[in-house]
Amino acid sequence: MQIVLLGSGNIATHLGRGLKLAGLDIVQVWSRDYKNAHKLADSLAAQPVKKLADITADADLYLIAVTDGAIADVAKAISTDNRLIVHTSGSTSLDILTSFSSRTGVFYPLQTFSKNKAVDFRQVPIAIEGGNKEVIQFLRLVAERLSEKVIELSSADRLALHVSAVFACNFTNHLYAIAKQLLAQRHLNFDLIKPLITETAERIKDNDPATVQTGPAVRSDLQTVSKHVDFLKDDTRLQEIYEKLSQSIASFNKNSQP
Amino acid sequence: MQIVLLGSGNIATHLGRGLKLAGLDIVQVWSRDYKNAHKLADSLAAQPVKKLADITADADLYLIAVTDGAIADVAKAISTDNRLIVHTSGSTSLDILTSFSSRTGVFYPLQTFSKNKAVDFRQVPIAIEGGNKEVIQFLRLVAERLSEKVIELSSADRLALHVSAVFACNFTNHLYAIAKQLLAQRHLNFDLIKPLITETAERIKDNDPATVQTGPAVRSDLQTVSKHVDFLKDDTRLQEIYEKLSQSIASFNKNSQP
Repeated sequence: MQIVLLGSGNIATHLGRGLKLAGLDIVQVWSRDYKNAHKLADSLAAQPVKKLADITADADLYLIAVTDGAIADVAKAISTDNRLIVHTSGSTSLDILTSFSSRTGVFYPLQTFSKNKAVDFRQVPIAIEGGNKEVIQFLRLVAERLSEKVIELSSADRLALHVSAVFACNFTNHLYAIAKQLLAQRHLNFDLIKPLITETAERIKDNDPATVQTGPAVRSDLQTVSKHVDFLKDDTRLQEIYEKLSQSIASFNKNSQP
Repeated sequence: MQIVLLGSGNIATHLGRGLKLAGLDIVQVWSRDYKNAHKLADSLAAQPVKKLADITADADLYLIAVTDGAIADVAKAISTDNRLIVHTSGSTSLDILTSFSSRTGVFYPLQTFSKNKAVDFRQVPIAIEGGNKEVIQFLRLVAERLSEKVIELSSADRLALHVSAVFACNFTNHLYAIAKQLLAQRHLNFDLIKPLITETAERIKDNDPATVQTGPAVRSDLQTVSKHVDFLKDDTRLQEIYEKLSQSIASFNKNSQP
């Protein structure tokens, strides 16, 4: 099986490595920035490609892993020979591809990828979608080479999954950054709070998060809430986040425990 | 060493168990609700106490683990014989105790305690504070029986630690609850997102969270942000949280990478 990889960012890089490790053949890498294409291609023993017009016509899969806003342009530029064109975006509908080929799909790995950290794809859920059964079967085979957790999702479900991932991962990581900043302002080490972060993430493996919610907001401990809001008085942004999330905790837990 | 435990909530329960396991002697347990005092006392082989006036005068440590708003009342009620009176609150100053005894302190375990989940105190940071050196030395000895991570903090530093814990733990857990709800609305299983939650929490053990921030907000991918805000259009509360946190990510990462 021959794969052409379009893109050289975090997802393209990790997906390329994962596919390669799974024994699949990345034949070419294209990127808007040829330098990046070259670098990634080298690490995958693939050929770097300068122009989209120079991409091989013989690949079994054209995997578009570029920013969401560029997917349609890339798809259009490679839309000949009824190629199998697949994007990797959480929030982009399959429809965006359908005018360019009758063989289209989505291959969305649900993980957060950092430049310098390897990913074990076995545990990474991969959501697939295809314009027809043949494509779905094919993408399932590819995905199962990488991961134990392959799931077929509609574009609407994948969008919901992506939004929930933004809450559970991107926003959560930002709260860690805020916590670190608050500690640093008093010369306290971020390490102090790491056991708490670990426990909070571990606990929901076997518990519904709403039922293990702790803290002043869920206890309706308004005295502590107002002490904290006062503590944050020099940072309106943090005050607003504190208040919004505290109100949300209070109403969420009221609604779920009628 | 003899300890009197005042309170029967999550902190009192877990702290009582931890002290007991560390070989310290809980002689009495008092709680506003005698039934709860009885239950906790039984599990600690201690004597339940109905009235604050009936607690023993001979204990080495009177540990107040009640809601913040009730600390002063309890301290006042037991303020004879210059007893060593210590509270366990993150956001309450040591000062609240100083009018009731010349021997006062704080013993604050930084962890999230759930009713049905045992806690390994060895890894739980314990922040201590004391009105004088003798108290600090004593509390350090007690704390070191429980934990490898004992730190002396001022009331102001402890408040900062507590606020940062609310961001990193309470708010984070609420984001997990939101993610679960968003998935459930489309009949998707919360398990799908658990590897992502684990990876996000694991990653910051060796990385500054600001430098590993991912997602549409930090990429300035406004197209995806607006898709997500539109997806949340039936829930103003979630829309506001999404927007506030996305704005915060954008400004935070701009400021930290000048």
